[in-house]
Amino acid sequence: MKIYQVVKALVSTSRIPEMDYKPLQIVQDKPGGSPMVAVDPIGCKPGDWVLCVGSSAARDATGIKGYPSDLTIVGIIDNWPEQKDGNSSS
Amino acid sequence: MKIYQVVKALVSTSRIPEMDYKPLQIVQDKPGGSPMVAVDPIGCKPGDWVLCVGSSAARDATGIKGYPSDLTIVGIIDNWPEQKDGNSSS
Amino acid sequence: MKIYQVVKALVSTSRIPEMDYKPLQIVQDKPGGSPMVAVDPIGCKPGDWVLCVGSSAARDATGIKGYPSDLTIVGIIDNWPEQKDGNSSS
Amino acid sequence: MKIYQVVKALVSTSRIPEMDYKPLQIVQDKPGGSPMVAVDPIGCKPGDWVLCVGSSAARDATGIKGYPSDLTIVGIIDNWPEQKDGNSSS
Amino acid sequence: MKIYQVVKALVSTSRIPEMDYKPLQIVQDKPGGSPMVAVDPIGCKPGDWVLCVGSSAARDATGIKGYPSDLTIVGIIDNWPEQKDGNSSS
Repeated sequence: MKIYQVVKALVSTSRIPEMDYKPLQIVQDKPGGSPMVAVDPIGCKPGDWVLCVGSSAARDATGIKGYPSDLTIVGIIDNWPEQKDGNSSS
Repeated sequence: MKIYQVVKALVSTSRIPEMDYKPLQIVQDKPGGSPMVAVDPIGCKPGDWVLCVGSSAARDATGIKGYPSDLTIVGIIDNWPEQKDGNSSS
Repeated sequence: MKIYQVVKALVSTSRIPEMDYKPLQIVQDKPGGSPMVAVDPIGCKPGDWVLCVGSSAARDATGIKGYPSDLTIVGIIDNWPEQKDGNSSS
Repeated sequence: MKIYQVVKALVSTSRIPEMDYKPLQIVQDKPGGSPMVAVDPIGCKPGDWVLCVGSSAARDATGIKGYPSDLTIVGIIDNWPEQKDGNSSS
Repeated sequence: MKIYQVVKALVSTSRIPEMDYKPLQIVQDKPGGSPMVAVDPIGCKPGDWVLCVGSSAARDATGIKGYPSDLTIVGIIDNWPEQKDGNSSS
C-alpha cells in the first residue's frame, strides 16, 4: 500500500455506469506530486493522509465486488510523520 | 486511477480477434508525455481529459467481460485544473 | 497498453513447460530503451511497432487460457507517428 | 518480490472493516527511500530486512483469502548483504 | 517479461508457510541494478541470464497453483546479447 494525501474530490459527470456509486478523490504522495485518483469508501476530507491499496485488491476494497478501481482508500492515517506541527495541508 | 489527455485514435488493422470491438485512444499524462493506449468505451474526442483504470479492473471496465485491456477510460473529467482558460488542447 | 518496437526473437531453450508453445519477441519502447520480452501470438517481424497488453490481461491474450505471460502483443500499429518517412527501423 | 526494511508500525484507526485483522508496517527499500506500507502476518520488528510480495499474490499471502493487500511481508531475510557488520539499522 | 541476471540464492529462514517449497534467487536487470527476488522453479546458477514473469502470471508459473509469487523465472536465455565474449558475469 502507499500513503497519499487527499487534495480534493474529482468531478466526472460522464462515466461508465459501473463507476456511479462511489466518490472519487484526487490524491498525491507529496505536495506537487503527480496526481492520482482513488475511490473513497470511507469519506475523507482534503488534507487527510490516507492509505491506498492498488492492484486487484483495489476492486473489492471499495465494498462493491468487482468495482472498476485500481486505487482505493482503505484507511486514514492517525498521525503521519510528515504532518509536522502547524503544517497541516488542508 | 490516473488522469490522461486523449491525443487521437490509434489504428491497428492487424489485431488479435479479441481486440476487434472497441476503439483505442492514444493518451498521455501531460503534453509530450510518454504515449499510452487506452480502450475507449465512452466515445472521447481529442483533447478530453479522462480518468483511466489499469490493472485487472481494466478488463471488465470495457463492458466486455475478460476483454484484453490493461488501461480503460472510465470517465471524462468535467473541469481538469490544468485545462486553464483558453488553453484547451484539441 | 503500451507501444513497443520489435527488436528480434528471443531464444530460451531451457523453459518451464508452460512456455513452450508461443514465440517470444524482444521489444523496446524506443531505440536504446530497456528491453522487454513479449509473447507474440500474431507473427511480428523486427521493426514492427506493436501494441502490447500487460497485467493479468496478458495471459488470455496469448490465445491460451492461463498462459504465463505478463506482456503480450495484441496488434500491429499501421502507421506509428514516430516512424518518420525513410526512417523505418528494420 | 522486493526487499524492504521495516521502519515501524503504522497506526490507522479509521479503516475499512476488511483491514481490521492484521498489523501494518511502514517499510522502505533503502534508508530515506519512499515509504510503502505492507501487511505483516509474521511479526517483524523495526530494522528487519524483509521479503515482500505484491500484485494479486499479496492478498492470499496475508493468510486471509481476499484480504485487501497489494504488499505483504512473506519472509525475514537472514543476512542481507547491505547490513554490514556493526551497521544494523534498528 | 523482463530479463534479469541471477546473483545468488536468498536465504530466508522465517517465512510464511506457503513459501517453503521453492528456492528464491536474487536477480538484477544489470550489474549494480536494484535487487529483485524471483522464485526459481528451473534451477539456475549465479550468472545465468533469465526471463522472469511478473503480475498474476507469476503465481501459477512456479508450478504450484496460487503460490505467493509476483516474480518467477520461466526460462534461461541461451545467449543474451549483453553477455559479450569473455565477459560472463559468474
